[in-house]
Amino acid sequence: MSERERRWNGWGFADESAAVSESARTWLSERLGLGNPLSAVPEQEVRIPPARQLPDLPATTRSDPGARLRYACGCGFSDLVRLRTGALEALPDAVCLPDSAQEVVAVLQVAAAAEVTLVVRGGGTSVVGGVTVRPGPRPTVVLALDRMRGLTSLDPASFLATFRAGTLGPEVEAALAPCRLRLGHEPQSFEFSSVGGWVATRSAGQRSTGIGRIDDLVAGLEIATPGGVWRLPAQPGSAAGPEVRRLVIGSEGRLGVITEATLRVRPVPECRGGVAVLVPGWGAGMEVCRALLQHGPVPEVVRLSDPDETSFGVALTALPRLASSVRDAIFGLRRFRHGCLLLFEWAGRLQDVTLARQAAARAWRDAGGLALGRTGWRRWLDERFRHPYVRDVVLSAGWGVDTLETAARWSVLAALHRAVREAMAQGAQRAGFRIAVLCHLSHAYRDGASLYFTFLWPLRRGEEIGQWQAVKDAASEAIIANGGTITHHHGIGSMHAQYLEREVGAPGLAALEVLAGALDPDGVLNPGVLLPFVPGPGPRTPGGREE
Amino acid sequence: MSERERRWNGWGFADESAAVSESARTWLSERLGLGNPLSAVPEQEVRIPPARQLPDLPATTRSDPGARLRYACGCGFSDLVRLRTGALEALPDAVCLPDSAQEVVAVLQVAAAAEVTLVVRGGGTSVVGGVTVRPGPRPTVVLALDRMRGLTSLDPASFLATFRAGTLGPEVEAALAPCRLRLGHEPQSFEFSSVGGWVATRSAGQRSTGIGRIDDLVAGLEIATPGGVWRLPAQPGSAAGPEVRRLVIGSEGRLGVITEATLRVRPVPECRGGVAVLVPGWGAGMEVCRALLQHGPVPEVVRLSDPDETSFGVALTALPRLASSVRDAIFGLRRFRHGCLLLFEWAGRLQDVTLARQAAARAWRDAGGLALGRTGWRRWLDERFRHPYVRDVVLSAGWGVDTLETAARWSVLAALHRAVREAMAQGAQRAGFRIAVLCHLSHAYRDGASLYFTFLWPLRRGEEIGQWQAVKDAASEAIIANGGTITHHHGIGSMHAQYLEREVGAPGLAALEVLAGALDPDGVLNPGVLLPFVPGPGPRTPGGREE
Repeated sequence: MSERERRWNGWGFADESAAVSESARTWLSERLGLGNPLSAVPEQEVRIPPARQLPDLPATTRSDPGARLRYACGCGFSDLVRLRTGALEALPDAVCLPDSAQEVVAVLQVAAAAEVTLVVRGGGTSVVGGVTVRPGPRPTVVLALDRMRGLTSLDPASFLATFRAGTLGPEVEAALAPCRLRLGHEPQSFEFSSVGGWVATRSAGQRSTGIGRIDDLVAGLEIATPGGVWRLPAQPGSAAGPEVRRLVIGSEGRLGVITEATLRVRPVPECRGGVAVLVPGWGAGMEVCRALLQHGPVPEVVRLSDPDETSFGVALTALPRLASSVRDAIFGLRRFRHGCLLLFEWAGRLQDVTLARQAAARAWRDAGGLALGRTGWRRWLDERFRHPYVRDVVLSAGWGVDTLETAARWSVLAALHRAVREAMAQGAQRAGFRIAVLCHLSHAYRDGASLYFTFLWPLRRGEEIGQWQAVKDAASEAIIANGGTITHHHGIGSMHAQYLEREVGAPGLAALEVLAGALDPDGVLNPGVLLPFVPGPGPRTPGGREE
Repeated sequence: MSERERRWNGWGFADESAAVSESARTWLSERLGLGNPLSAVPEQEVRIPPARQLPDLPATTRSDPGARLRYACGCGFSDLVRLRTGALEALPDAVCLPDSAQEVVAVLQVAAAAEVTLVVRGGGTSVVGGVTVRPGPRPTVVLALDRMRGLTSLDPASFLATFRAGTLGPEVEAALAPCRLRLGHEPQSFEFSSVGGWVATRSAGQRSTGIGRIDDLVAGLEIATPGGVWRLPAQPGSAAGPEVRRLVIGSEGRLGVITEATLRVRPVPECRGGVAVLVPGWGAGMEVCRALLQHGPVPEVVRLSDPDETSFGVALTALPRLASSVRDAIFGLRRFRHGCLLLFEWAGRLQDVTLARQAAARAWRDAGGLALGRTGWRRWLDERFRHPYVRDVVLSAGWGVDTLETAARWSVLAALHRAVREAMAQGAQRAGFRIAVLCHLSHAYRDGASLYFTFLWPLRRGEEIGQWQAVKDAASEAIIANGGTITHHHGIGSMHAQYLEREVGAPGLAALEVLAGALDPDGVLNPGVLLPFVPGPGPRTPGGREE
C-alpha cells in the first residue's frame, strides 16, 4: 500500500493545508485581539529519549525515532501544542504492527508477562487523549493496527461487510462501491480514522441522523484478548442476555483489541439533495430540526449553526463580489439579525428525496426561514474534511482553537447551549483572556441532538494548554450539570475519564472496572484511558498504575 | 386498581378463552393422530407445602397459598403442564410487593443478609423459565413489581416517557394516548407483560420491524441494586464508554431490579393500512421482505407464514361459505400449491402509507403474489393477542404445542429454516411421536429476520415435558449450528442458559459472570436464570447454588 505522507505535527496530509480568509482574521482580531503565534519546531529539534529495553515482540516492530515520534500522540489540542513545541510528555519505546488477530494475542501475552504497557491505536485521530503515550515506569509500546486493513468478507444478500480493524474510511467506501453499497459512516476524521477506532470510541459520523451511530452499524466483532481471539458473530437481533457487542463498542481498548468488525451496509442512494437555509434564530432552527426528527421524513444530515457560528462561517467564506453583496443584503435584514444557517441533506430514491425536501421546506417556511440554495450545502460537502486543517493555520496566526461536544434531550438543549457558552466565557474570563464560542446542532435523534462547540482564544506563550484547560474544565462541568453527556462522539480517552462516574453512576463505573479486570487482568491495555483507575492488583492510583 | 382475574393455570384472563375450529382439529388429527388430553386439576387439589421461615421483609408481603401458587411459575410449556397436573417443582415461601425503588433496595439487603433467594417478576409471562421458582435449600421469595405501576413523568418535547417497571402494555398506551403519543411496543404478551420485564428480557414487539426492539426504545433506567438505587439518565446518544444501559437491558434480573424506564415514544400515526397477500412460496416471500427492508420503505409490520403455517392458519379460520369457496379456489391454483401468507402493516402520514403500499405491491407482484385484501390483516390485528389462549384449548384436546424463535442474517435464513424443521422432526421421531412444525418470518431487519416456530404433537400421558424437551433440544442445537441466535425475543431464562456461552463466547460469559458477581455479590437475584452458574463464593454448581 503506498501511503500519502501525513503531517507529523499537525492535521492531515503533509501536502495539503487550509487558508484562512482575511475577513476571518479580522473577525477574530476584533473579538479576541491578537495572540502569540505558536510556531512549530523542526522535527530534528524534538528530543527523542532513548528507548527502554523491551522483550522480543512477536510481530513487526519499529523503534526508529521517526516512528516513535509519529505514534506518540493523537490529534487533541494538547497533543498539537506538545508536538509543535517539541515538548512531548512521553514517547513509546517501540511501535508494534501486527498483521493478524493471532499476532495481536501473542503480543498481548508477551506484554502481560513482561509488564509492558500497550497503547492501542487505529488511525490515531483521537482528540481526547485516547492514543497519547503517557509517562510511566513501565516500557510502553504502541500497538498500531495500520497493517490490518481491507474487506475480508461481504455478504451482499444480508448487506453485511466485514473489515479488518485498521481499514480507513475511504478504503471502506472504495471496497463497497463496486457492489453499489456504502457504509455512510463519515466522521470528520473520515480520511484518517479506522473501523476499529470508530467501534472502540462509539463514533458518530456526520450522516448519523440518517445512518445511525457506529453502535447501530456493528453486527459482529472479533476481538483479541490476552486469553485468545473472541468472536461475536453477526446477528440482526437477539434476546440472548445483555448485548455483549455493546460492551466492546466504546470500550476504548480496555477490554481487548478489536481486530475485525462486521458492519451493516446499505445501497448507494439513487439520488442526493441538499440545501442551505437561513432561519431567523437558534430557537426557531431547533424547532424545525425537532419537528423533522419527530414527525419525519428524517434527513440524512441536519446541521444548524448558532448565530455566532453562522457569523464566523460567513467571515470564513470568500464569495464572488455579486454573491457577497446579495448575502450581505440578506444578513442585513432585521429578521436575520440573529440568523442561523441550517443545512439539510437527503438521500434515497428521487421521489423520497423530493418529498422529504418538500416537507422540510414547509417546516422552515413556517419558521420564517429562507432557502439559500444548493451552494451552501455543496460547499459544506466539499470542505467538511478540510476544517481540521484550519486549526493549524489559526494556531500559527496566534489563536488557540478546539472543539467539544455533548448531546441532550430536546427539552434541555437551549438551556444547555446557554449554560455551556456562559461557563466557557467565565472560564476564560477568570483566566484573564477573551474567547469566542461557536456552536452547531447536528447528529439529531427523535429524543434530542448533539451540540458541537468550537472555541477560539488569543494564545499566551507557554500557557497554551493551561488556557485551554480552563475553558475545557468549565465546559465539562456545565455539560454534566445541565443534563448533557460528557461526550457525544469524541469518546472518553484520558481527558474525560474523571467524568465517567457522573455519567454512568458508581455501579456503572464499578461494572466497567471489573470487566476490564476480568478481560485484561494484568492491566496491559490503555491504562488511564476510559477508566480513571487502572484495574489489577495493587493500590488504586489515578491516571495510571504507579509502581 | 381493580384487576380483571387471571387464570391461575393457563394463559390470560379467566373469563376469556379461544375456540379451535373443527377444521383445525381435523388438520391436527390427520397429521398427528390423537393424543392424551391433559386435563387440569382443580386449585384445591394442588399440594402447597408449608412456607419456610423468612426474615421480616421491609415491604408488603403475602404468604397465603393462593398468592404462592399464582407467583410460582411463568407461562412456558413446562410451567403449564406442572400447573395443570398440580405437580409444581417448588413454590415461593412468600410474595413480596414493594412500592418503591427504595423498598426494593431494602428487600435486596435483607435477602442478602438472610440468605434468601429472590425471583424478580414483572408480568410473569416468561416462557423460558425466567420467573419459575425452583427447588433449593434457601428460602425463596418472589419479588413482584405489580404495585409499581404508572407514568411518572412525560417530556413531550423530547418524546420521552418514564414508567414504573410494573406498568403493563395497555397501561403504557393508555397513559400516552391523551398526548397523541404511543410507544408501539406490542409483544404477544402485551396485555400482561410489563415495562420492566420487556427491558430485562430484551423484548421485541410485533411492530419491531418499524418501531425497533425495546433495546432501541430505552433512553434511561433506574435500577435497584443491593448497594442502592442506580440511575442512568436519558441520553439520546453518547460516546461515554460502552453503553452501560445495554448491560442492564437483557440482564434478566441478574444485575439488579429495574424499577423505572424512560422510553422513546412517537406520535400516534395519522393513518394505518395493511394487507394480506398470498405469495407462491417461502423463498419468494422472503425475497419480497428482504427487498423492502433493504431498499425501503420499511413497513411497520412484516409477517410471512411458511406453507405449513399458512395451511394451518387456513384450517384455523372459519369463513362464511362464499368467502371460503373463493379462498379454496385461490389456494387450489397450481401457483399457490406452496402458497405463503404475507402480512404487511404501514403507519404514518396518509401519503407515506400510500407510497409504501405501492412500493410493496410492486415487490409482491413481481414475485407472483396476489393481494387478498384488508380482511386477513384486520383479522390478525384483532386476534393476535388471543393466540396464546389456543394453547390451553389444544392441550385439553390432547396435543402439545409450544413456540420457539431465532434470528439470522438473510443469507442463511432459508437453510436455517430447513435445518430447524428437520431437526425438530428428527427429535420427535427419535422419541417416537409425530410432529407438525409451523413457522413465520417476522421482526425483520436490514441484515436479517426472526424465524418463529410453532410445533404441535400428540401428548403421551406423563411424558409431556419429556416429549417437549426432545424437540426443544433438537431445535436449539440446530439453531446454534446454523448461524441463528438461541433466542430472538423470548430471552434466556433458565431454559437457554446452557447455550449462552456458545452465543457470546467464553469471554462474554465470563464478563457477564463477573458483572453479576460485582452487582449482586451475595447471589440473591434470580440464580440459575441467564447465567448457567451462580456467581459468588463457593464451588460453581450448575443450575443453582447448592449448599
